[in-house]
Amino acid sequence: MVGIGRDEYTGRVVATSGGFLYEHLAAELGQAIDRGALRAGDRLPSVRRFAQERSVSVATVLEAYMRLENAGLIEVRPKSGHFVRRRSALIAEPRRPRSCSTPSRVTVSDAYTKILAAMRDPEMLPLGCATVDQAFLPIQALNRLVIQVTREMTTIGARYEGPPGLVTLRRQVARRAVEAGVALGENDLCTTIGATEALSLALRAVARPGDVIAVESPAYFGVLQTIEGLGMRALEVPANPRTGLDVTAFEDTLRQQPVRALVVTPTVSNPLGSVMPDEERERLVRIARRYDLPIIEDDVYAELVFDGSRPRPLRAFAGPSEDSHVLLIGSVSKTLAPGYRVGWVAGGRWHDQILRFQFSHTLACPALPGMAVAEFLASGGYDRHLRRLRAALAGNIERYRETIATEFPEGTRVSSPLGGFVLWIELPPGVDALQLHEQALRHRVVVAPGPLFSARQRFTNFIRISAGAPWSERFAEGLRTLARLSARE
Amino acid sequence: MVGIGRDEYTGRVVATSGGFLYEHLAAELGQAIDRGALRAGDRLPSVRRFAQERSVSVATVLEAYMRLENAGLIEVRPKSGHFVRRRSALIAEPRRPRSCSTPSRVTVSDAYTKILAAMRDPEMLPLGCATVDQAFLPIQALNRLVIQVTREMTTIGARYEGPPGLVTLRRQVARRAVEAGVALGENDLCTTIGATEALSLALRAVARPGDVIAVESPAYFGVLQTIEGLGMRALEVPANPRTGLDVTAFEDTLRQQPVRALVVTPTVSNPLGSVMPDEERERLVRIARRYDLPIIEDDVYAELVFDGSRPRPLRAFAGPSEDSHVLLIGSVSKTLAPGYRVGWVAGGRWHDQILRFQFSHTLACPALPGMAVAEFLASGGYDRHLRRLRAALAGNIERYRETIATEFPEGTRVSSPLGGFVLWIELPPGVDALQLHEQALRHRVVVAPGPLFSARQRFTNFIRISAGAPWSERFAEGLRTLARLSARE
Repeated sequence: MVGIGRDEYTGRVVATSGGFLYEHLAAELGQAIDRGALRAGDRLPSVRRFAQERSVSVATVLEAYMRLENAGLIEVRPKSGHFVRRRSALIAEPRRPRSCSTPSRVTVSDAYTKILAAMRDPEMLPLGCATVDQAFLPIQALNRLVIQVTREMTTIGARYEGPPGLVTLRRQVARRAVEAGVALGENDLCTTIGATEALSLALRAVARPGDVIAVESPAYFGVLQTIEGLGMRALEVPANPRTGLDVTAFEDTLRQQPVRALVVTPTVSNPLGSVMPDEERERLVRIARRYDLPIIEDDVYAELVFDGSRPRPLRAFAGPSEDSHVLLIGSVSKTLAPGYRVGWVAGGRWHDQILRFQFSHTLACPALPGMAVAEFLASGGYDRHLRRLRAALAGNIERYRETIATEFPEGTRVSSPLGGFVLWIELPPGVDALQLHEQALRHRVVVAPGPLFSARQRFTNFIRISAGAPWSERFAEGLRTLARLSARE
Repeated sequence: MVGIGRDEYTGRVVATSGGFLYEHLAAELGQAIDRGALRAGDRLPSVRRFAQERSVSVATVLEAYMRLENAGLIEVRPKSGHFVRRRSALIAEPRRPRSCSTPSRVTVSDAYTKILAAMRDPEMLPLGCATVDQAFLPIQALNRLVIQVTREMTTIGARYEGPPGLVTLRRQVARRAVEAGVALGENDLCTTIGATEALSLALRAVARPGDVIAVESPAYFGVLQTIEGLGMRALEVPANPRTGLDVTAFEDTLRQQPVRALVVTPTVSNPLGSVMPDEERERLVRIARRYDLPIIEDDVYAELVFDGSRPRPLRAFAGPSEDSHVLLIGSVSKTLAPGYRVGWVAGGRWHDQILRFQFSHTLACPALPGMAVAEFLASGGYDRHLRRLRAALAGNIERYRETIATEFPEGTRVSSPLGGFVLWIELPPGVDALQLHEQALRHRVVVAPGPLFSARQRFTNFIRISAGAPWSERFAEGLRTLARLSARE
């Protein structure tokens, strides 16, 4: 005798014992959904028609549908009928990592160089790198601006635009910051080679080799690499899948040991996609001030919250700009053009030092890409583009989640990001993400293995995948490959 | 009774005692030259005519002219007559600094930020920054290439060109390196944000904070700033005005104390304009190998030797590429477009480490400027451009030297560079270059004060001026202003 149940982790339909007719019906439908014969969004036959087809009573069908609804497999839409629910609604989120009190030298991994190298190979399915596909970017408009700028400012390449960099760009960035609630002027900003240089300069301004830098756990591996490159140590503080850095755990850490700075992404963290609530932001800024601790705030995903809100950066809670202990970092690499390498930093108290460091490490940013971006920001086309991009990415994320929920082995969990375009996948215990990464490469699929996101090589059974490209059968196939490889491990 | 003599330092004509008629004549002509009544290149009256005019014998005039010739004031051109020599041929070169055995933390000076800031002010006379004026650069051709590249490679900005960077650019740079005698392939190279990032990455690859880095004295202040920015110490080794780094003094230094690396510009050093002879290059490479010492070779001026020779880089003397202890650095900032920020490094033994550091500090270079430069290098227009540029700069340098020789106070010495476009001026003892720099700014003239070129703030009575802009009355006036300010000090 069968009935239906749901696996704790995956929400996958499983048969349970039981003998009533409605249980058999429910199990049959549940398995059809599970096999994909009925797909998310499909309408089930009407109660009356199904009862006729199967020669059972309306009450039996109603009871079966109710079971499926209770199991989360279908949903009732008033006046429309019963529909198969998205499977992704059922899959659990990855678990929050445990606290860890020992700072570590970051261990270099080769995985990230492979990820970057694979990006240049068009044969590779680009699930590894956190960039948006060109199909979602306003490349045409930017190209037109490049040509226009080149024609109008004919001598733009002929001189160094030394620190703090192009004033036109700084003015536009400051304007948008003010709109987001941060009192910034053009003189509070320095343009950089993407957010990566901004982070490197900010870290060097506030800390020395050997110093301990607190990071979210999991953390974007680029942050860890930069910390490593500067000879500093990373201390991982647990982050919650929805709300980001655990501020209480962070405060505990500060009580226990010397920390020199915090690097944090309050809005759409990478890889979790979490967004820190305003109260937590305020609390974090207050705590940091009490400990005289600089916060380096990575705000690169801030425009990509799906609901269109633009959370106030920590910097907005941190008092006057020139004396701020929050160093705000941004770029257009996630929203306009990664290859332009246009970023910025508002260094607060460390602004002058950042200008000096930039002078001695890159001397100046190339003017042309910055000029084109400034023109784009000034045009007003940016907000229109962002609205479209957010909608496209939200749809994408749901599509990827759905496929993961359907295809990946039991015990898989996946993040439910509030913005951005990456998913953090916890695979069943025992799956080795580094091996999976290697095997996937052989199938021309690139993913970012979990240990990259930890200075201590935790997250051995996690991977991050990017959902920044338009959905296609190629991506579906890539995900199925990953699912197969994960199941085999 | 008067005769003529020449001041030891300036070559300025001075009267000496003596009573012969030819001595009086010679003194009179010499003083006319000194006052500028007779100018460089002017033809003197023929011997016969002058004898008639003055009612003296031809022998007396001949004797007077011979005296002037011996004093270096005039020259005989066969079948043309006697001509006033360039004054710049007479002015002495700056003196070689003494050795100094203590490495120093570099002391930061604000002067360089003022120099950079002043660059953006079109009201300022740009004698401070070592860049070539746009009038000498092929900006139009580059702009056309930018537009062409943007049209043809429409998605060039849409992805990261992570380390080692654009292969098209690396291929062109490798091709030119091979022509210069260095066996380099595209895989030996990494593109960078100008030579400044290349230097920063190279230094970080070979040394740690606190390490001692040997530099030429005087050294380009950017090198000193980068060393300072990385928390390393600079040790100055004397350089000769014509042949650059004193290799014997350098070897003595290595015997006496631990040195972690050498940064050197063998071809057209900045500020001296020296070119190291091949035998010295070979010797330097051999000595460094014996001490297992990495050499960071700054080759950015290598295409700007006036006689069109392209000296083989040290790297050419240093064995197979992948194991080389010479890290070769270059850029197009001195020859094509400073604002493009296109440079490169061939890291030899440290290549992989440089790629990793770049990944964590800038992530990637912007693709568009590099692509335009690669196209330009591939076009063959580069060599044509370089020929014109060298001729223009050589003429410029002579013009500036001439004016300095004529206008600056007694005791002034000036370098006689073999290439490039900067002049290193030793002002009379007692002139304070930092004060001069400040006063000049008030007259809207920017110069680089000597102490910037030393980690120990030596060269207190030196300045570097740039002769990278087409000559005009504005520059003549600027030099006269500097001369006046120097005389008043």
